[in-house]
Amino acid sequence: MSEEKSILAQINDPADLRRLDIEELTALAQEIRDLILQVVAENGGHLASNLGTVELALAVHYAFNTPYDQVVWDVGHQCYAHKIITGRRDRFSSIRTAEGLSGFCNAEESEYDCFTTGHASNSISLALGLAMARDAKGEKRHVAAVIGDGALTGGMAFEALDHGGELQTPLIVILNDNKMSIAANVGALSRHLMKLRAAPAYHRAKRDVDAWLQKIPGVGPLMVKALRKVKSAGKYLISRGILFEELGYVYLGPIDGHDLPHLIELLEVAKGSDCPVVVHVRTQKGKGYAPAEQNPSRFHGAAPFCLASGYEKKNDQPAFTDVFGKTLLELAGQDPSICAVTAAMADGSGLKEFARSYPRRFFDVGIAEQHALSFAAGLAKGGMKPVAVLYSTFLQRAYDQLMEDICLQQLPVVLAVDRAGVVGEDGYSHQGVYDLSFLRSIPGLTVMAPRDGVELSMMLREALIWRRPVAIRYPKGKADQGLPLPAPVCYGKGELLREGRDVALLSCGVMAAAAMAAADILHRQGVEAAVFHSRFVSPLDESAVISLASACGGRVAALEDNIAEGGFGEACAGALRQEKADILSIALPKSFIAQGKRDDILGRYGLCGDKIAQAVAGKWFAK
Amino acid sequence: MSEEKSILAQINDPADLRRLDIEELTALAQEIRDLILQVVAENGGHLASNLGTVELALAVHYAFNTPYDQVVWDVGHQCYAHKIITGRRDRFSSIRTAEGLSGFCNAEESEYDCFTTGHASNSISLALGLAMARDAKGEKRHVAAVIGDGALTGGMAFEALDHGGELQTPLIVILNDNKMSIAANVGALSRHLMKLRAAPAYHRAKRDVDAWLQKIPGVGPLMVKALRKVKSAGKYLISRGILFEELGYVYLGPIDGHDLPHLIELLEVAKGSDCPVVVHVRTQKGKGYAPAEQNPSRFHGAAPFCLASGYEKKNDQPAFTDVFGKTLLELAGQDPSICAVTAAMADGSGLKEFARSYPRRFFDVGIAEQHALSFAAGLAKGGMKPVAVLYSTFLQRAYDQLMEDICLQQLPVVLAVDRAGVVGEDGYSHQGVYDLSFLRSIPGLTVMAPRDGVELSMMLREALIWRRPVAIRYPKGKADQGLPLPAPVCYGKGELLREGRDVALLSCGVMAAAAMAAADILHRQGVEAAVFHSRFVSPLDESAVISLASACGGRVAALEDNIAEGGFGEACAGALRQEKADILSIALPKSFIAQGKRDDILGRYGLCGDKIAQAVAGKWFAK
Repeated sequence: MSEEKSILAQINDPADLRRLDIEELTALAQEIRDLILQVVAENGGHLASNLGTVELALAVHYAFNTPYDQVVWDVGHQCYAHKIITGRRDRFSSIRTAEGLSGFCNAEESEYDCFTTGHASNSISLALGLAMARDAKGEKRHVAAVIGDGALTGGMAFEALDHGGELQTPLIVILNDNKMSIAANVGALSRHLMKLRAAPAYHRAKRDVDAWLQKIPGVGPLMVKALRKVKSAGKYLISRGILFEELGYVYLGPIDGHDLPHLIELLEVAKGSDCPVVVHVRTQKGKGYAPAEQNPSRFHGAAPFCLASGYEKKNDQPAFTDVFGKTLLELAGQDPSICAVTAAMADGSGLKEFARSYPRRFFDVGIAEQHALSFAAGLAKGGMKPVAVLYSTFLQRAYDQLMEDICLQQLPVVLAVDRAGVVGEDGYSHQGVYDLSFLRSIPGLTVMAPRDGVELSMMLREALIWRRPVAIRYPKGKADQGLPLPAPVCYGKGELLREGRDVALLSCGVMAAAAMAAADILHRQGVEAAVFHSRFVSPLDESAVISLASACGGRVAALEDNIAEGGFGEACAGALRQEKADILSIALPKSFIAQGKRDDILGRYGLCGDKIAQAVAGKWFAK
Repeated sequence: MSEEKSILAQINDPADLRRLDIEELTALAQEIRDLILQVVAENGGHLASNLGTVELALAVHYAFNTPYDQVVWDVGHQCYAHKIITGRRDRFSSIRTAEGLSGFCNAEESEYDCFTTGHASNSISLALGLAMARDAKGEKRHVAAVIGDGALTGGMAFEALDHGGELQTPLIVILNDNKMSIAANVGALSRHLMKLRAAPAYHRAKRDVDAWLQKIPGVGPLMVKALRKVKSAGKYLISRGILFEELGYVYLGPIDGHDLPHLIELLEVAKGSDCPVVVHVRTQKGKGYAPAEQNPSRFHGAAPFCLASGYEKKNDQPAFTDVFGKTLLELAGQDPSICAVTAAMADGSGLKEFARSYPRRFFDVGIAEQHALSFAAGLAKGGMKPVAVLYSTFLQRAYDQLMEDICLQQLPVVLAVDRAGVVGEDGYSHQGVYDLSFLRSIPGLTVMAPRDGVELSMMLREALIWRRPVAIRYPKGKADQGLPLPAPVCYGKGELLREGRDVALLSCGVMAAAAMAAADILHRQGVEAAVFHSRFVSPLDESAVISLASACGGRVAALEDNIAEGGFGEACAGALRQEKADILSIALPKSFIAQGKRDDILGRYGLCGDKIAQAVAGKWFAK
């Protein structure tokens, strides 16, 4: 292996790559796979997609003159090989750690990353914008978007395809088709792609095309414009890629995404096009690592694992996600009108067993959050009890649908908002620290945040009884927070966890445990802090907040793993506007928060027991 | 005309309709057109689309057993005929007025309106949810969505089509193709539809199909399943509707949407399908009223107009929208990198002249707000200066793209947020009273609100210089607010409009004029109110707010045409947390606000000079 190692060691940027021959490139691909495997087994991260795109990343940087040519990677979770060959090889082992490389594209890291990414389906829009700017400035660069078949399900990808088809400027859409988005792919489009995939691979087809092209006078052999003419003239390829062709794209493919020479050749063909092109590339998720090939879904976003066995180095503590999944499964067994809606996150949201047990009441709509919520609204209107599960950060995609199709209708959709608060290693683009702000301003929406898994379970039960729009937000992290069993959930009422007369700690969600820890510390300093777990952010238990503030001499600290602006603290301040209370808001800063370990980040911003105690003591009880 | 009148007078619900013969239905259509014209000329409203869908509404209620069969009208702005024949004929003249009928579907108004609607592209999602609920409950009802070709451009419509194509349950998608969304339609899909439209009309085609069907043994003549088989077996219809067919739908059409007998017949065919169907209906916007047929875009959302001439009963005062359009046009003349992005709202956003003058720098992406913002991000990254114009309520659709693709990147996109605050006659689904809340919580976004047209113009100029993400929100309404000329705009700084020592009125946007009026009234009562126009909601001019509050003895009133939760008042309260200020928040209630005249609504919620003066005097200066 020492010989191959030496190839990767020579690659400091894509220019180095372009000096290699195919044999060396192939060896390099293996070295990159080895590196990715080693690092992800250690740090965790997106494994399956990255093993699937090694050759594609090499071919892209080989064929395109990056960074002058601009390539936008959709989501960016598949960009590890891209990072390794664009000057970040030596820092690669730091990926997804504090101060380390991002697990997604990051424009601050490298000029090879056009955008700082993380959410799906936007690459064609971004690339089309770049392409129109290029045209306006009279530049000649190539612009490409690399988008997975899963991300193509997202409506905005279609909006962009539609617009690009109209504008007819050169734009290369590289469809990285691995037969699945995050879980197994869904949707009619996916079936369409499956048909295309079944077609003979491109390199055979191309020979035929070349033969055709020879017969047309005055046409260069690789001119795609001509290719289009051939297609419409002859019967050839007539049944393929028709959806893209109808939208105004030349369809090229499918091609084996692990076949480097043909991949590079086809990208060269695409570069010759004077109109938009779709290059359909078939890749295999997890390629080259048997456990990931066999179970790509488990290795989508993987926790650290044992390289030899593929087994996760498991934390046996159940997470909120597990509690959610288990509770919903149990409730669904009792009530046949309960159904689950997910946007391509069945595994990550704890719905795997639900999907298996109740396939007819389980709806995975693909990466399509907007449709997920409006579809859930339709189910609710039809008398079902839909529970829609979205990660907090992806719920941003469906803000309007939540407002208009669920809350304006007052339809009983229960929204399980997973990965709320600080997400940790996914960093900037994935933080769930804005949801309290954008949810609290939606009329008619009940917003809850459980303090632990038991309470999540209780809240979910109750929410399904209330027959109104309810959002329950909970973080990534362990369900057991070491707190006593919760009292029954009563609509609009919070829970006093600890009595005290000196200061009121108003906590939201999992900040309850931190507040209790702070109260313990303060107690040892002679300060008796009351701890009030709000349970409801909207409607806020205003009377309890007011009477507690008054009982504590107006000394109030509001704690939340959300930004201060529009969040829980401002809600408390609103309730206390007439009360001459002095409010200390301990919240996250209004910023895009960098990656790191969840507890470290919370601690950095003062959201842990000792920091809270310190802030409270410093403000009111300094000796 | 008295004879025909008598038909409409007999129609109290769709059951009455189903007793009519085709001749009577045709006469009824004319009566309905006359009624729509009279009422819209008086009240204003969506005219062109409603004149185009009279026959479609009749055919739908004739063919379907509504309300048991469920029909979801996309947007709902084309539902006037539907309302007239579903028991709301006598209240129809109240449409779009306070306490009157809604200009959109409204579930509170009638069981024939499945949902309270207003935003585009969600009908297929909602209908698919209804269809799956029907299946779960073993019901037999038909479920249909009526969606315009413009709304089909919206990504979520594609998400829903994709999911529906997978689920393969009976669902009837009626494509109301009038060759335009709100303005002339755009996008490759639109070209696809144009091709379909050019095909021979359905009723000829159908005869051929029937002939085909006779040749297949054991198949009923109207079974759509069989139709599908025929299509794939023969060459017939092969080039039509292929996009829908590829997505798993049977494509029926195109059909003349003003030909009642054939329309009803085709809907009956669709009802027989055991899988999803697209019925492609060609309609003409403005049908039957020459001025609207000739200029449907102007008659999309029309102000009251003279029925004989078609001329608008015009208010000559320029609106904020006009000032925006004029300013951007002027700036674009000076800087070739300035470009404009709109989502099907070129007319409504004041960009008509821009589009004419700078067609290569004008991008109408269709009803596709998500793509609009990410596309603008791409333009900005490529060195252009994009100004994206969206109505406040539709910006909700692109919340995530604004967060992730513009603000996380810190790209210099200027967002012109039109129709912010109270919108008036459009009511519930269109209010722009949440934007300060959802914009204020986005990191890195500068949020401004001008007090009048001159300031809007100044802000736009400055925003294009700052090279950072900026949102400028302004209302529907007249640009001249009777205020003195604004001082130059300085980043992050507000403007003291009036000095005073007794109370500080902190105003946001057009609340400035109301604050000044209140200060005048208070002055006459011996109370000297300072008026501070904030200009910036984010970043807030905190030092000015703090020093003014302190100068006024801590008596502060915050005024905003936004809900209180997460809005300007809470921002002021946050700035004053350490200041022992007593804050009176005058804002809109956290609710979906009903239609009515804009000034009436603002007045009802205390956002006018006298009410503000009254509230301030009552709180602090009661004798």
